[in-house]
Amino acid sequence: MLEHLFSPESVAIVGASQKPGKVGHDILANLVKGGFAGKIIPINPAGGTMMGLPASTNLSSYDGDLDQVIVAVPKSAVVATVKDAIAKKAKSIIMITAGFKESGAAGLALENEVIGLCKRGGARLLGPNCLGLLNTKNGLNSSFAGDLPLPGNIAIMSQSGALCTSILDLAAGRHLGLSKLVSIGNKADINENDLLTYFAQDQETKVIVGYLENIVSGDTFIKVADATCSKKPVVILKSGTSQAGQKAAASHTGVLAGADTAYGAAFKRSGVIRADTFEALFDYATALSMQPLPKGDRVLIITNAGGPGTMAADAVEHAGMTVAELDTNTAAALRGKLPEAASVGNPVDVLGDAPPERYAEALKAAQDDASVDAIIVILTPQAMTRPTEAARAITGAINGSKPVLASFMGGKEVLPGRQELSAAGLPDYESPERAVAALKVMYEYATWLRRPPRIVTRFRVNRRRAVRIITRSQRNNILQMNEVKAKKILDAYGFNVLPGRLVTSADEAVELSRRIGFPVAMKIVSPDIIHKSDMGGVKLNLASAQQIRDGFDLMMMRIVQQVPHARIEGIYMEKMGEPGLEVILGMSRDAQFGPMLMFGLGGIFVEVMKDVTFHLAPITQDEAIQMLKSTRSYDILQGRRGHKGVDITAIAVGLQRISQLTTDFPQITELDINPFIVGDFGTEPIVADARITLAAADKKFVL
Amino acid sequence: MLEHLFSPESVAIVGASQKPGKVGHDILANLVKGGFAGKIIPINPAGGTMMGLPASTNLSSYDGDLDQVIVAVPKSAVVATVKDAIAKKAKSIIMITAGFKESGAAGLALENEVIGLCKRGGARLLGPNCLGLLNTKNGLNSSFAGDLPLPGNIAIMSQSGALCTSILDLAAGRHLGLSKLVSIGNKADINENDLLTYFAQDQETKVIVGYLENIVSGDTFIKVADATCSKKPVVILKSGTSQAGQKAAASHTGVLAGADTAYGAAFKRSGVIRADTFEALFDYATALSMQPLPKGDRVLIITNAGGPGTMAADAVEHAGMTVAELDTNTAAALRGKLPEAASVGNPVDVLGDAPPERYAEALKAAQDDASVDAIIVILTPQAMTRPTEAARAITGAINGSKPVLASFMGGKEVLPGRQELSAAGLPDYESPERAVAALKVMYEYATWLRRPPRIVTRFRVNRRRAVRIITRSQRNNILQMNEVKAKKILDAYGFNVLPGRLVTSADEAVELSRRIGFPVAMKIVSPDIIHKSDMGGVKLNLASAQQIRDGFDLMMMRIVQQVPHARIEGIYMEKMGEPGLEVILGMSRDAQFGPMLMFGLGGIFVEVMKDVTFHLAPITQDEAIQMLKSTRSYDILQGRRGHKGVDITAIAVGLQRISQLTTDFPQITELDINPFIVGDFGTEPIVADARITLAAADKKFVL
Repeated sequence: MLEHLFSPESVAIVGASQKPGKVGHDILANLVKGGFAGKIIPINPAGGTMMGLPASTNLSSYDGDLDQVIVAVPKSAVVATVKDAIAKKAKSIIMITAGFKESGAAGLALENEVIGLCKRGGARLLGPNCLGLLNTKNGLNSSFAGDLPLPGNIAIMSQSGALCTSILDLAAGRHLGLSKLVSIGNKADINENDLLTYFAQDQETKVIVGYLENIVSGDTFIKVADATCSKKPVVILKSGTSQAGQKAAASHTGVLAGADTAYGAAFKRSGVIRADTFEALFDYATALSMQPLPKGDRVLIITNAGGPGTMAADAVEHAGMTVAELDTNTAAALRGKLPEAASVGNPVDVLGDAPPERYAEALKAAQDDASVDAIIVILTPQAMTRPTEAARAITGAINGSKPVLASFMGGKEVLPGRQELSAAGLPDYESPERAVAALKVMYEYATWLRRPPRIVTRFRVNRRRAVRIITRSQRNNILQMNEVKAKKILDAYGFNVLPGRLVTSADEAVELSRRIGFPVAMKIVSPDIIHKSDMGGVKLNLASAQQIRDGFDLMMMRIVQQVPHARIEGIYMEKMGEPGLEVILGMSRDAQFGPMLMFGLGGIFVEVMKDVTFHLAPITQDEAIQMLKSTRSYDILQGRRGHKGVDITAIAVGLQRISQLTTDFPQITELDINPFIVGDFGTEPIVADARITLAAADKKFVL
Repeated sequence: MLEHLFSPESVAIVGASQKPGKVGHDILANLVKGGFAGKIIPINPAGGTMMGLPASTNLSSYDGDLDQVIVAVPKSAVVATVKDAIAKKAKSIIMITAGFKESGAAGLALENEVIGLCKRGGARLLGPNCLGLLNTKNGLNSSFAGDLPLPGNIAIMSQSGALCTSILDLAAGRHLGLSKLVSIGNKADINENDLLTYFAQDQETKVIVGYLENIVSGDTFIKVADATCSKKPVVILKSGTSQAGQKAAASHTGVLAGADTAYGAAFKRSGVIRADTFEALFDYATALSMQPLPKGDRVLIITNAGGPGTMAADAVEHAGMTVAELDTNTAAALRGKLPEAASVGNPVDVLGDAPPERYAEALKAAQDDASVDAIIVILTPQAMTRPTEAARAITGAINGSKPVLASFMGGKEVLPGRQELSAAGLPDYESPERAVAALKVMYEYATWLRRPPRIVTRFRVNRRRAVRIITRSQRNNILQMNEVKAKKILDAYGFNVLPGRLVTSADEAVELSRRIGFPVAMKIVSPDIIHKSDMGGVKLNLASAQQIRDGFDLMMMRIVQQVPHARIEGIYMEKMGEPGLEVILGMSRDAQFGPMLMFGLGGIFVEVMKDVTFHLAPITQDEAIQMLKSTRSYDILQGRRGHKGVDITAIAVGLQRISQLTTDFPQITELDINPFIVGDFGTEPIVADARITLAAADKKFVL
């Protein structure tokens, strides 16, 4: 574990300096100022005494072992320093020095050399190119990030060192307490996964906050984050969310699945709360660290002014939560305690002249009312208002049974009241809307915590047949699988594929159609033609031998006209299925997080409205149904709006089967079933068309 | 005008008191403290001297005329006081007293009595039930809202008095300057329209901020707001945006058009910037009051840290603006002035050790670069950073040619720097995302200012025919017009309606179909059947006499089975039109803002995806095309995604014709053309079905 990183007994700082402006000066000064009780050993070639501490000229000349070595020396001296540190049995090395991976190939080589040394020497490495770390419990400030903040229960890790300085400064301004802060730099060794694991069991930490620009290992992250979030909330700001460039992809799913979608899916799966802005990061973390989670979404608003109360109610409704109604008994009892003009609806309006006690009465009533899950308290500094006393009355009335969030709206006059609230553990926001936004993520996190156990169904499938088809395709370097082969694989995985076959002459076509029965569909099969219908390569509902002959000849003629050099394998003939609702099921493999499943209603819903949802495989039945429910077009599946309802479970099973297939075969990089035709209840949905893309055979995979 | 309200020569306060805690005390104290140079006359039955000023026992006993009278007496004394004030030739009366319209019928009567007195007496009335007003120019604080803020160029009006106290307190905390603040209370006389008109010409005011819960007169508001916004920006927070209850409506348009939609349309039409949160109100107002408007949407980011730079770039892209590229010459020149490791891309990264001058260099380069429209400057307080000096260097480098917004991220250490920025007129935000949001509304407002002149086309129509049909319907109290009549009205307004007629027997149907030609459509006509197709009341594509006979008999039989007591007027027979793209055009009359036009693609797009846009009538061709463009499904109209393009102008003309029809006839409360079938270019779109709802005949309207 990382105990030695946060609680060493001795810390040496190599490159310690007495010259202000030098990094080695700031770190030493911070260590000394922080009040760390262990040994601090400045290392400087000049030796002597530095800031009152005896310095060593180098690591080797120090007498004894060292727990932690902070390296703030030029790049050229790094390797020797690390070797010395390991010789001193250092358990953690904090590499402040920059110029590694981030600066090109030579830097990367150096970084790898240092990692190798640390691995062999049994030392863990923080950085390089980082600001260090802080631990408020033991006063350890092994950083040049800034002064030690107040002790608190929020732990922070940041991939941006600069952001650490902003966060410390913000914490200082807001009197916000932190447990730990870690600048993770290049993450050569210690990364977000290590820190999540450590913070998960850290007694001082109640909420974990992270700023990340990438993730080291998607698989591990999901496992670690899931385990961590089951214990305490994790709020992450992931930057780089804009779509810098559209990537090339062969499938609809591939086109629609951006990298940010994958992060979204991974965070959702593992319970991570995502913050979209720097302010939201702390708005959420503060609420989560101070207040209990709500048991439901019914929010009561207490206010001394109508306007802001309405603003809060608007925000609650826009957030998809419920504006609570007080129980009639509660309302009646409260009515007796408030002046006649007060409102005991929602918002509860304690009126502009409300003395502190009125807030307390309303708050007590709301806390005792079983039809309220969370409370927002709003105060405006009117002529008769005593904000500071109101803050005291409010914090005094809180019993901790439900989350209470405040918005004392104003600046100068409400400031002391706001500080009272914060000091007493009541999160306070400059506007009601921000309080509601924080409450919303608390509610979502609470819902995630209550999620049913994840049981992934394994269907009986013909895996060996799929292996055969895939292996052969890869061997022949046919990575863009045609409909015929894709359907064979899907058939092996239990999908319903209509009877059909590849034919190469009109006679053969007629012969086949007589066997499978009219009407039939014909589709051109060629590795050179992707958009079949645009090229006249699809004919549907052919109902007689004559239509089939005509269709075959026309299709061949037109294709040759339009794509003269197309390699034509033949025409795929298939029995026409019953009409039904067309949906699309797909998968796009994310480099970090693996198979990402997609669902959407077909055609315009996907192509124009982009009304699709994503979920990481493996998927459970619950999660698959949730995917359907989160589309805007869910009403159609349910049979509203003049549409017949369809068998939702059948679609969910389709997604689960794709989940199994693409988890079984890491070689499948993209997959579209488009359309997947869903008929009446009791009928099996049909794979009407499909496309599978494989990775090149030389890519490693395990079967 | 309202000059006397903000710049009276004398102010009397009736109900002045020396007892702290009394409203009359606070107002008098505020007046005295504010430093108002005119006469202040306390009125109190006891007379004597109050806060150093000679008091009068009542208004009549004061010797001379009075410009402004503040009324803070019990409700029972209000009428006498107003009479006295008018006798003293008061030009403005500020009614602090509450208990009027907001408290029920008796209050409303009293309010009307007071309005009558003021009207006849030539006095303007502010309130009742308000906190008064403040003017920083002459030190007039005729309020009990709080202390006078610093002078500045933001004028505020608020329908919530409590919010005025929060705003003043916020301004005090942020050292934010205001020109005027007005608590408008019940708006019995002076309302938002009066104040917009006054602020528009007020030299001290550069930006107008409003908090509104409703609007007094929609028509006037649009005119006044449009004129005001053409001169200076208006930012409004309108609360009560949640959909408390679904209203009953006969048309799709009516169902989809909520009251908040109408406010949105009215604000958009008149150039008003809408703030969704309390913080946004001041975030936007600050930027607008301090910086010039951008000429385009290309944003350059200057930062001393990568992470926050990426956060800002993400925000720019999510806001739909462009991450600018520096001109190659600018980039090369800047490269020469920055260290090697700095980035001159976007973000421009001046590096963690950036001294103030580096910010200045980057800012100068960006200001001189023609490919940059706006600049965001980000600072994190790293070890070598000098935030205060950086703030000075930045403000020193600004030349006022382009908007520059800052985000100094942190708390304690960056605070003095943030204050430097604000003092020098550079808006500063706690997070890059908030700076970007403010920039976005500046860009949108600039775009509005450059809008083309609004020229509303008048089509030649047969208005008299429409008058006849509508008048007859109203006279017979048929307010829900059937398809037959609705189509006649639309025909009169130039819409393309297919040949058709009401028939009452199968023979007549066959006879008619032979005249208009096969295939035909048949639709039941009954005032008791709204959802015709659900009841078997629609048959399409009937292609022979036999089919028509069968269809007629079946339809009659089924309708009688399903709705036994339906009054059946007959069956409407119509020639089938060519198939095409089905869209919906509609109108729902908003009580405040009049006819609100709607456009959407038909069927699921409207019913499931709610992909519709609204615009107030009268509409120009530009605006109508803009309505089409703002749907998510616009691609389909354009002929992408496998659809044939349609004649967009023809749809725009349809919207313009509805605009003219519903502007001509205020009796029309709802109208749906659904579907409106748009075919190939050069063909006329067809009204396939239509529905019109009229107001009852006793409603007043002008023809």
